Amino acid sequence: MRNFDYYNPVKILFGKGKIAEIAKWIPKGMKVMMTYGGGSIKKNGVYEQVMDALQGFDIVEFGGIEPNPKYETLMRAVELAKQENVGFLLAVGGGSVIDGTKFIAAATCFEGNEPWDIVAKGARVNAALPLGAVLTLPATGSEMNSGGVITRQSTLEKLAFNSRHVFPKFSVLDPMVTYSLPMKQVANGVVDTFVHVMEQYYTFPEQAEIQDRFSESILKTLIELGPKLIHAEKPNYEDRANFMWAATMGLNGLIACGVSQDWSTHHIGHELTAFNGLDHGITLAIVLPGVMNATKIKRREKLLQYAARVWNIDTDQPDAADQAIARTEQFFNELGVKTRLSDYGVGIDTIDRIEKRFRERGDFALGGIDDVNVDNVRAILTSRL
Amino acid sequence: MRNFDYYNPVKILFGKGKIAEIAKWIPKGMKVMMTYGGGSIKKNGVYEQVMDALQGFDIVEFGGIEPNPKYETLMRAVELAKQENVGFLLAVGGGSVIDGTKFIAAATCFEGNEPWDIVAKGARVNAALPLGAVLTLPATGSEMNSGGVITRQSTLEKLAFNSRHVFPKFSVLDPMVTYSLPMKQVANGVVDTFVHVMEQYYTFPEQAEIQDRFSESILKTLIELGPKLIHAEKPNYEDRANFMWAATMGLNGLIACGVSQDWSTHHIGHELTAFNGLDHGITLAIVLPGVMNATKIKRREKLLQYAARVWNIDTDQPDAADQAIARTEQFFNELGVKTRLSDYGVGIDTIDRIEKRFRERGDFALGGIDDVNVDNVRAILTSRL
Repeated sequence: MRNFDYYNPVKILFGKGKIAEIAKWIPKGMKVMMTYGGGSIKKNGVYEQVMDALQGFDIVEFGGIEPNPKYETLMRAVELAKQENVGFLLAVGGGSVIDGTKFIAAATCFEGNEPWDIVAKGARVNAALPLGAVLTLPATGSEMNSGGVITRQSTLEKLAFNSRHVFPKFSVLDPMVTYSLPMKQVANGVVDTFVHVMEQYYTFPEQAEIQDRFSESILKTLIELGPKLIHAEKPNYEDRANFMWAATMGLNGLIACGVSQDWSTHHIGHELTAFNGLDHGITLAIVLPGVMNATKIKRREKLLQYAARVWNIDTDQPDAADQAIARTEQFFNELGVKTRLSDYGVGIDTIDRIEKRFRERGDFALGGIDDVNVDNVRAILTSRL
Repeated sequence: MRNFDYYNPVKILFGKGKIAEIAKWIPKGMKVMMTYGGGSIKKNGVYEQVMDALQGFDIVEFGGIEPNPKYETLMRAVELAKQENVGFLLAVGGGSVIDGTKFIAAATCFEGNEPWDIVAKGARVNAALPLGAVLTLPATGSEMNSGGVITRQSTLEKLAFNSRHVFPKFSVLDPMVTYSLPMKQVANGVVDTFVHVMEQYYTFPEQAEIQDRFSESILKTLIELGPKLIHAEKPNYEDRANFMWAATMGLNGLIACGVSQDWSTHHIGHELTAFNGLDHGITLAIVLPGVMNATKIKRREKLLQYAARVWNIDTDQPDAADQAIARTEQFFNELGVKTRLSDYGVGIDTIDRIEKRFRERGDFALGGIDDVNVDNVRAILTSRL
C-alpha cells in the first residue's frame, strides 16, 4: 500500500425528505444563489422542496447550467454572484450543475488573471464561496468530492480541476428525486460510476486489501442493480438508494487511498465529448474496453483478480482475462448503452483530432500509467470504431 | 436503507514516515499537550519521532493514561491543560489514549457541574480543545471517529460518549509504529475490529448493499490477515498497513450508514472489564458467540448472509447458521484469544453483578435491538462460562 492522505469533510444528508433539512446547514443571513440546469427541477417537485426548505433566506436563481458545464455560462453566474453579493451557493442538479457550481465558487474568489487558468493551468484556488448540493442524478460523485470538470466552448476543451475549498459543506441525497430521470441518464450514471471505480482499481496488485474489496463491492452492486434499475416498471426506492450511495462511494476518494490510478478512459472520453458532444457516460462505455484490451498483458494480474472476484470467472481458463473484458462491455450493452464509435457516427477524423491534441499537450501518459499513452491512443480508439 | 447523516472530517495521514508531517496541521503558536500511556512510546522510537516533528512548539507532557482510561487520571490532565493554557492536544497511543484525550478536550471546555456528566448523563458538549492523534495500536477506530469510552474507578463504571467537537483534526497511521506491539495486543485489536464490524452488520437485511459488502470486505480481510499477523516471524509492512486501515474503517461511521446496529456485545463486555479488569478485546471474544446464539433465530437471514459471504459456508446445510457462529469463535481462538469466562476465572458472581447493574440502569435492550436484553443477559453469559 502506498502512503496517502485522506480528507473528506462533506456532510451527507441521505434519504427521503432530507431536502427539508438544508436550512440548518446554511449560515443564517447569507444570500443564497441557487444554481440548476435545464429546468427539470421545476417539473419534478424538487424546486418547490428546495424553496420550501429555504424560507427566510434571500435567494438569487441561476438556471441553465448545461451538461458539460460551459465556462462561458459559469462566468455569467460569477458576475451575478459578485453583483448580488452572494454568500452561499446551492447547486440543485446532477454532476454538471455541482461541478459548475464548484467552479463558480472558486472563480468568484479568484484573484488571478482569468479563472480559466484554474482548469487550464492548474492555478491555485486559495478561497471559494461555501456551497451545498442537492443531488438529482447519481453518477459523477461530485456531491462528495472536491473536483469538477469544465468545458470551454470557444476552444472545445474539457478539463478538470480540484481544490479542497470546493468540497460541498453538505450534500442531500434523496433517492426519490431520481424517480423522474430519463432511463438513459440512469444507464449513463451506472456506467460513469462503474468506470470511476475501474480507474481506481484496474491497475496493479498493491496489497491494498480493503480498497480492492471496497471497489469490488461497488462493482458487484452495480452489476446486480443496473439491469434492475433499467428494467423496473416503476422506480424502486431501495434500488435507487443503493445506486445513489454506490455512485457517491465510487468517487469520494476512499477507494483511491494508497493505490495507483489510471484516468485515461476519462481523459480520452472527455475529448469525444468536447469534439462530438457525446454523453459522458457513453464515451466511457466506448473507451474502457479499448483501454482494457491495450493494457491486459501488463495488468494481467489485476485483471484476473477482477475476473474472479467481480465476475466469478474461473481464472484457470486461458481466456479468463478476455472474458472479463467482454463481460464488462456486455454489461454496458445490457444497460442499453452502445459501445462502438460507429454507433454514434464518430469516425477516423475525430481520432485524428484527439491524437493531435494529446501530442500538442505533450503529456505522454494519458491517465497516470504509461501503458495508455499518446502512442497507443490511436490504436485504442481505432479498435472501438 | 434507512435515512442517515454522515460526517467525518478527520484528516488521515497514512504510511511510513508520516509522523514527520504533523506540525503542518497544528496551528502555529499553540501550546501542545502531548498525551500518552504507560511509556512504551519512549522505548520504540515514537516519542522521538513526535518530538522531532514538533520542534518549535511549546510542549507539555501528560503520560500515564491507562488502558480503559480512568476519569480520575484524565481530570488531572484537565487541570494541567487549564493551568498551562494548552491550545492543542496530541494523543500518542492506542484507543485508550485517544479516547482519554477526547475526554480531556471536552472536559477542559465543559461548563456544567462535573465533566463525568458527559458520559454518565449525556451532558451536551458545546466545545472542545482541538486534538490530533498518532495511532500506535489499531483496534478501536477512535482515530477516525467522535466517540470515547471512559472508566470511573470509584464506581467501576465504563461508559461511552460522543461529540462532533472531539473528531481529531488529523490522525497519523504509520504501520511501522505497530511493529513493537506485544502479539497479545495485535490479537485483541483484530478481535475488537471484527466485533465492531459485526455490531454494525449482524442485525437484519435492510437492503443496504454497499454497507453490507463493505462490512464483509473488512471481515474477510481480518480473517485472512489475523493468522498472518499472529504467526509472522517478523512484522510485515503490508499486513500491518492493511490491519491498520481495516481497524479505522471498522468504526469511522461509514458501515453504520443507513443500517440497524446492535452494540450489546460491547455493552456487556464493558461490564466484564469494569468488574474484572479483562482486556477489552477478550471480553468481546467471550460475549459475541453468546449474543449470536441468543439471536440466531430472529436474525437468521442476516446470519446466513454472513455464513455464505464471509465464511463461504453452503447455506443449504441445515446447521449453516451454527457453523458460522462456531467459525467465528474458532477464529478468535486461532488468534490465541480464549473465549470462555472460566478461562479467565470469571464466575457466576460477576454474572449476578452485571445483571443487577443492567436492571438498575433500566434499559431493556442492551445494544439497540431488543433480542439482547436484561432478561436474557444472564443466559447469554451463563452460556459463556
